[in-house]
Amino acid sequence: MGETMTQDQEPVRQRLLGEATRLFAERGFESTSVQEIVSAAGVTKGAMYHYFDSKDDLLHEIYGRVLRMQMDRLNRFADGPGPVAERLHAAAADVVRTTVENLDDSKIFFRSMHLLAPDTRKSVRAERRIYHERFRDLVTEGQREGIFRDDVPADIVVDFFFGSVHHLGTWYSPEGPLSGAELGAHFADLLLTSLRPEKPE
Amino acid sequence: MGETMTQDQEPVRQRLLGEATRLFAERGFESTSVQEIVSAAGVTKGAMYHYFDSKDDLLHEIYGRVLRMQMDRLNRFADGPGPVAERLHAAAADVVRTTVENLDDSKIFFRSMHLLAPDTRKSVRAERRIYHERFRDLVTEGQREGIFRDDVPADIVVDFFFGSVHHLGTWYSPEGPLSGAELGAHFADLLLTSLRPEKPE
Repeated sequence: MGETMTQDQEPVRQRLLGEATRLFAERGFESTSVQEIVSAAGVTKGAMYHYFDSKDDLLHEIYGRVLRMQMDRLNRFADGPGPVAERLHAAAADVVRTTVENLDDSKIFFRSMHLLAPDTRKSVRAERRIYHERFRDLVTEGQREGIFRDDVPADIVVDFFFGSVHHLGTWYSPEGPLSGAELGAHFADLLLTSLRPEKPE
Repeated sequence: MGETMTQDQEPVRQRLLGEATRLFAERGFESTSVQEIVSAAGVTKGAMYHYFDSKDDLLHEIYGRVLRMQMDRLNRFADGPGPVAERLHAAAADVVRTTVENLDDSKIFFRSMHLLAPDTRKSVRAERRIYHERFRDLVTEGQREGIFRDDVPADIVVDFFFGSVHHLGTWYSPEGPLSGAELGAHFADLLLTSLRPEKPE
């Protein structure tokens, strides 16, 4: 995947993102200085400003790279073969797994989004909206086919599901009993079952 | 309810909590000083320290009073009459409604929990665990009766649902198309449907 190629091309950029993620997770975005980030990465401030405009920009990119990866994966599941229920299940289970595998990023982001400059926040929201809309289209597709209930708006289904996904950073522990893949399967099962149309009594 | 009585008995305490909530929501917990809170409430620092040990203590209490209110309401639904599916539906819809009615509190809390002193954080987690366990007992009760699926652990069901509830502060707007009661009904419908046992094919 592109991620590995980027790592080889831009070790400094990746190192900065890695150290910033670690420091933001440990001490909070507010309490971490640019100086601490460049020291931890072993580079100069000048080197950092070559890649990132500001601490805001680092936070934006920490979230952005996970979101882009998740967007690529969602597109692959959504555009793949098979019935919509299977494609939605696979996409839902996968985003839980990749969120858990990048838990620090998600944790930092939802704690600190309100500290971003308004323009950055706006652009992050727009990027995330595109992701949510693609996911929502799968729900709508199933509703149109009569496979999913349509008495709950597809937008609400998406907000319901992604509330659970975005909140993982507050409670999930990799030392706990469930792997990200197992948790993803449970969440996807709950989502798909929640979409079943009412049984005729 | 007790809330109104407390308000009459302790106007200074309530005013401090109200102003602290407003300021934390507007500027963030980190960026608000004790001086700003007491000025906004029109009291002295001495008066504040009569009621609260610290800024941490204020944040703890902002969340604590909502949690106590929600615990009381959950107990009433859980111990009430009727089949478990109805009691769980009512409890789930109600916690969405009360969360939306106290959205600033929830928003502040999940943004700032990581900034609390370790002891305060521990005690908050313990209080919340009691709430979640009571909610989980309803799920277990339905699983035992064979009304709810038991292939997903009850703990995971609770984490799934409360992820969505706790995340409301990041996206719900009272200016949007749905009231808290309407959203609560949708979330409760999704939860209850997600718990249906597999249909025999």
